[in-house]
Amino acid sequence: MTNELSRKISPITVNEERIAGRLNQLAQYGINDHGGIDRSLGSRADMDARAWLKDLWKREVAADVSTDPAANLWAEREGSEPLKPIVLGSHHDAVANGGKYDGAVGVLLATEVVQALKESGYAHRHPLKIVSFSAEEPNPYNISTLGSRLITGALDSKQVSEAIHLQTGEKLSETLKKLGGDVTKISEHLLNSEDMGVFLECHIEQGRNLIDHGISLAVVSTITGIYREEVTIYGEANHAGTTMMKNRHDALLAGAELSLAVEKIVVALKRRDTVGTVGHFAVSPNSANIIPGEVHLIIEVRTSDGHVLNEILHQMNQKCAEIENKRQVHIKRKVILNQKAVPMDPLVRKTLQQSIKECNETYLDLPSMAGHDSVHMVPIARTGMLFVPSIGGKSHCPEEETKIEDIVKAGNVLIRTVMALDKELD
Amino acid sequence: MTNELSRKISPITVNEERIAGRLNQLAQYGINDHGGIDRSLGSRADMDARAWLKDLWKREVAADVSTDPAANLWAEREGSEPLKPIVLGSHHDAVANGGKYDGAVGVLLATEVVQALKESGYAHRHPLKIVSFSAEEPNPYNISTLGSRLITGALDSKQVSEAIHLQTGEKLSETLKKLGGDVTKISEHLLNSEDMGVFLECHIEQGRNLIDHGISLAVVSTITGIYREEVTIYGEANHAGTTMMKNRHDALLAGAELSLAVEKIVVALKRRDTVGTVGHFAVSPNSANIIPGEVHLIIEVRTSDGHVLNEILHQMNQKCAEIENKRQVHIKRKVILNQKAVPMDPLVRKTLQQSIKECNETYLDLPSMAGHDSVHMVPIARTGMLFVPSIGGKSHCPEEETKIEDIVKAGNVLIRTVMALDKELD
Repeated sequence: MTNELSRKISPITVNEERIAGRLNQLAQYGINDHGGIDRSLGSRADMDARAWLKDLWKREVAADVSTDPAANLWAEREGSEPLKPIVLGSHHDAVANGGKYDGAVGVLLATEVVQALKESGYAHRHPLKIVSFSAEEPNPYNISTLGSRLITGALDSKQVSEAIHLQTGEKLSETLKKLGGDVTKISEHLLNSEDMGVFLECHIEQGRNLIDHGISLAVVSTITGIYREEVTIYGEANHAGTTMMKNRHDALLAGAELSLAVEKIVVALKRRDTVGTVGHFAVSPNSANIIPGEVHLIIEVRTSDGHVLNEILHQMNQKCAEIENKRQVHIKRKVILNQKAVPMDPLVRKTLQQSIKECNETYLDLPSMAGHDSVHMVPIARTGMLFVPSIGGKSHCPEEETKIEDIVKAGNVLIRTVMALDKELD
Repeated sequence: MTNELSRKISPITVNEERIAGRLNQLAQYGINDHGGIDRSLGSRADMDARAWLKDLWKREVAADVSTDPAANLWAEREGSEPLKPIVLGSHHDAVANGGKYDGAVGVLLATEVVQALKESGYAHRHPLKIVSFSAEEPNPYNISTLGSRLITGALDSKQVSEAIHLQTGEKLSETLKKLGGDVTKISEHLLNSEDMGVFLECHIEQGRNLIDHGISLAVVSTITGIYREEVTIYGEANHAGTTMMKNRHDALLAGAELSLAVEKIVVALKRRDTVGTVGHFAVSPNSANIIPGEVHLIIEVRTSDGHVLNEILHQMNQKCAEIENKRQVHIKRKVILNQKAVPMDPLVRKTLQQSIKECNETYLDLPSMAGHDSVHMVPIARTGMLFVPSIGGKSHCPEEETKIEDIVKAGNVLIRTVMALDKELD
């Protein structure tokens, strides 16, 4: 009986109980009193999670477990042919007081997929790899997607050498060493297109699209571009009693108008792939009886379409000029991030969509509005992402949750996708 | 020749050179590198200014110089009859990086008026006193108009006992002791209506009314009421990428709308005696990639009319309900200050106006939009205030300035006012 035949008779599937058990086990590393997870890079919880993962992989999946210079964890099963590996994975770290599913779902589903394929006796042509990247989330070193960027050369290793833990002052280079990495050896071990044929990441959506549509799976079309600018508004600090309304140059009110304008401009576009936020807003001197003289704020725009970003910036320029004129304030703007949107690989998307149909499931095509490690695999590998629903759209909090049946569906889709790509790609 | 007669022939006037010289001398205590004055309660500059003032008074004005339990400084010249004193004064402290005129003008003009009257040989019936109050300005102990409130019983001495210097941790009670005060003796030395018949304060306007009208003097009608409320807006912190615009409960945008509404409501009233300000505005978590979940802000409204305040609050209530409904946020409000407007004494106002006319000057009737020590003299004495122009409307900054000729005009008006009240009041 060929593999193809056996698959038709009784498809290889993931083991629900095993996934659920492992999600709970991993969640024990860093669980706090609020029911949230504290598992930032280099923490006790991170170290324990890493030991547990490597042990799990060695016992259940593959003898070949390793740590690269960026402290990313790898497990490998050899293929029958000398082809580029098919890699599955995500990250095992968490934001402060984060949830049990962000990253963990991707790593444990990668583990389960490879284990299920192994147990089924399926003879894959390509090597299969599992990866868990270091420090994907915002962390006390202030460098996110650290592992995926570092190992693909997208992050300057000088920046890493200079970074220190905001609370403890520990050097990031020392932290990486403690975890089995070595920042001085990055350049010799950079991943390139020979090291990875495909990268597949399953992740929680972190939004409400799937949950609101009652659909279990989404195939990611694009990972959003992220644009950020720092805005400083210079008004005039003055006595809040003796300065008549008409004589004021209130920086706070100018900032309020600008923040509301960002919302208005973005909402008017009515696009599912575009959002705009003022998340940081600081007032000076910030005293009840002094008219605010200065405001510092950060505008963030995320969109999968560069033309849309340009249109938003055009409207923002007009609004800034209008506010400057009306309030006689000066608005200084500085772009601090302009990360372009990244499309997912068409073949991988098509294979994911096909696999979902074979499982008799429906799906949405969604842009990812959050950044992911996958962004940094795009330059070297055919990359695709699968989303599972976030209950209530919540993430990065103790309430973060995804139903186990949705994770199981994603696992079965990933098995079919790996098998299809294993067959199709050379 | 009676006093009355000599006055008609050659009026008693202040000495411009002496006032200018003393303003410069006092400004040496606490002058900083920006040209501003740092002279907060208990500082080296405060102590030096106090020693200089007391010495000046002893040498030039009156042998009877004293410090009360609130560390307010007093000089007294006896009158020819057993009447309640006529008191002139202000304060000698300054805000951080403040100016040379706020408070200083009132203290030095009081000094000059009493000295000029003494030198002229004018025989006043009432005792004449000069006072320089402690810590009128916002200061590191977070208690302003400290001296005037403490010595009139308007400030709980327990609050004073508990206050500490925000930077050094020094106890306020110890600071007052260092300056010759004693908080434990306040209750025995409270000022009452027997201790003060009249209180006159000359102060810089700190606004633009006089300067914009090209007029040198204003007679204060009312000292503004000050209303403050603390507002906390509870929205929902969420991922700034994955949370679509329609699913947001952005506390910052709610706070922006509320701040702009305060401005709009107050501007629509078109009143010279009413202003509204959001001076304090703090966002949480205040991170570029997180939708603001909470905003804390303080709304301040100043008006001389309680009905106007009620109308503003009525409109603010409606706006808050509208914002809560539109953005599905919760707005919690708490009144933290509701100081009623205080009218100046009609007889003192009339006498000031009459004296200005006799000097062939014009004046404005203005509400004071800033609080002053005078507020706390109202319950015990006939109280009046005279304003001199602030160039550019600026105060509480190194650029704060008033032309010496305007100060001289105010001094001559005060001399006439003291003489008229001395004659009229029993």
